[in-house]
Amino acid sequence: EAKPQQKYCGMTEFVGTAIGDTIGLVIANVDPSLHEMMKLDKKYRSIGIIGARTGAGPQIMAADEAVKATNTEIVTIELARDTKGGAGHGSLIIFGAEDVSDARRAVEVTLKELDRTFGDVYANDAGHLEFQYTARASYACQKAFNAPIGKSFGLIVGAPAAIGVIIADTAVKSANVDVIGYASPASGTSYSNEVILFISGDSGAVRQSLIAAREVGVKLLGTLGEEPKPATTPYI
Amino acid sequence: EAKPQQKYCGMTEFVGTAIGDTIGLVIANVDPSLHEMMKLDKKYRSIGIIGARTGAGPQIMAADEAVKATNTEIVTIELARDTKGGAGHGSLIIFGAEDVSDARRAVEVTLKELDRTFGDVYANDAGHLEFQYTARASYACQKAFNAPIGKSFGLIVGAPAAIGVIIADTAVKSANVDVIGYASPASGTSYSNEVILFISGDSGAVRQSLIAAREVGVKLLGTLGEEPKPATTPYI
Amino acid sequence: EAKPQQKYCGMTEFVGTAIGDTIGLVIANVDPSLHEMMKLDKKYRSIGIIGARTGAGPQIMAADEAVKATNTEIVTIELARDTKGGAGHGSLIIFGAEDVSDARRAVEVTLKELDRTFGDVYANDAGHLEFQYTARASYACQKAFNAPIGKSFGLIVGAPAAIGVIIADTAVKSANVDVIGYASPASGTSYSNEVILFISGDSGAVRQSLIAAREVGVKLLGTLGEEPKPATTPYI
Repeated sequence: EAKPQQKYCGMTEFVGTAIGDTIGLVIANVDPSLHEMMKLDKKYRSIGIIGARTGAGPQIMAADEAVKATNTEIVTIELARDTKGGAGHGSLIIFGAEDVSDARRAVEVTLKELDRTFGDVYANDAGHLEFQYTARASYACQKAFNAPIGKSFGLIVGAPAAIGVIIADTAVKSANVDVIGYASPASGTSYSNEVILFISGDSGAVRQSLIAAREVGVKLLGTLGEEPKPATTPYI
Repeated sequence: EAKPQQKYCGMTEFVGTAIGDTIGLVIANVDPSLHEMMKLDKKYRSIGIIGARTGAGPQIMAADEAVKATNTEIVTIELARDTKGGAGHGSLIIFGAEDVSDARRAVEVTLKELDRTFGDVYANDAGHLEFQYTARASYACQKAFNAPIGKSFGLIVGAPAAIGVIIADTAVKSANVDVIGYASPASGTSYSNEVILFISGDSGAVRQSLIAAREVGVKLLGTLGEEPKPATTPYI
Repeated sequence: EAKPQQKYCGMTEFVGTAIGDTIGLVIANVDPSLHEMMKLDKKYRSIGIIGARTGAGPQIMAADEAVKATNTEIVTIELARDTKGGAGHGSLIIFGAEDVSDARRAVEVTLKELDRTFGDVYANDAGHLEFQYTARASYACQKAFNAPIGKSFGLIVGAPAAIGVIIADTAVKSANVDVIGYASPASGTSYSNEVILFISGDSGAVRQSLIAAREVGVKLLGTLGEEPKPATTPYI
């Protein structure tokens, strides 16, 4: 996908946009009545906001790098059933910060990381696959996926969900990894047509699992349509 | 959007169609076994039905005028995750009436009001915004949004949800209004990619909030695509 | 819809593809850690998998024939909110078997039956209708729809949901059938824009109900767009 030219709107709340119809925003002082409705922790008067029509995994992995790099906390992660007619999720991620410059920095880092974290998203007209890897999971991965902090973490997504079952099985058979979660249309997703596997363990083992699952997933999804191509540049 | 020519089908149950793939229907005597399954109040043998692929807010606001104007009651309001690949909801609204002519009249009023209530719906390929206002909320607004009967009420929707957060904040900072509700992808929506704010209060303040939120929303959504245009003619 | 040419991928897990972006797969020995996460019954080491972007009813009815014809059990049926921007569901169906050849056979039968079970699916740009009939319901219909085993069963779907209300009423007024279930956007669906009626009873009565509902549904959906056409060849 060609990188679209950024459009600006001259508002201080606006930070930028990125792939996946992702927008990054900040609020320096959340209005008290809204603050309460959003159930935000009182210590954060500033928030950073990442919202996307297409993708949750890429945005969460990018936000994971942002919390490592900034003085912010992940406050909430919500998954819409979206992807503009596709089989997956959109996302709403909120960072809390005591200072708006921290919130802005977290949003900037997230937007910048998205080009990488869309690298192992493969799609065709029939569905999509997603693979994510980090050598050291942080608070976004913990909040969204229950990943152990500081350990290697991997994410495997297949849509339609049937393909996710096969590549989850491939992943766990390919290396000695810990399965920390499994989500499916009726459980752990927002009724998306995905099966998602969450794995942890030794860095090399997690990567080996992901690579094996990716190889199988691309073959299977290809039987339903065109050969699936990565959205940007694969990083795993 | 050009007004499509109405098509008729010669059935007594059919009332009409409108913008948003909205259809209006009536049943004079609901079959007792279905009546029970639908958990309808026994006193209503007749029902009016409004269903739409695209939109819940416009249909609910239109139904609010219909209950004011007719001898009917709002029985149920259900929100599908729909909008035909968009970020929002479709809707199913059921009016109860003792007489089918009342049910039919409620459906007719609702269909007619839709041209107005789509007036502050702005969309582009990346998302949508919606603003609704009534000087005097009635039973549809109460049922769907918990709006106090007889008071001014306003609705603010932003999609992707991140934009909704910002315009909700803008709205409450722009005038002295009461926040009566807040919905987001994981809470209060059917996993739509929206943040929705419900406000009440003084008529002038509610309108001021809506106008401020609308101005910001149009700017922000425009950074993700074309300039958002109203679906019909703005009324706020 | 023209029958697409099957594509193969040379993997033993791959069985085939069919209408509705449906894929059929098997796993001979599910990895123990995945087996546990999926909450599968321990006696089934082999599973057959049917997954689809578009359709749940057609796949479940087809799976119902497969359990009749093979030594397998329906383990889980999950409905995603999908249909690629349409108003309905996708599906994930898992067969359990002690032997992989049984699982494979169940998947093959299901894929083959789909051409028939899409026969009374009618769609246009505004929505869809679905009618299903079996003279003798088996375990897939029981699991998914609470259908009594061995009795005639019928399924009526209308989308947008408003049309489903009318054709459900038509169905129960047309013949003496038992209503065994009713699903709507907020209850019993995955927030799809459908009303679904489940009926049982005498074989002739169930068919009569379905035929009456179908006639009305096609007329009503036609008022919102083109005349709805069957996806394959009607069988009821």
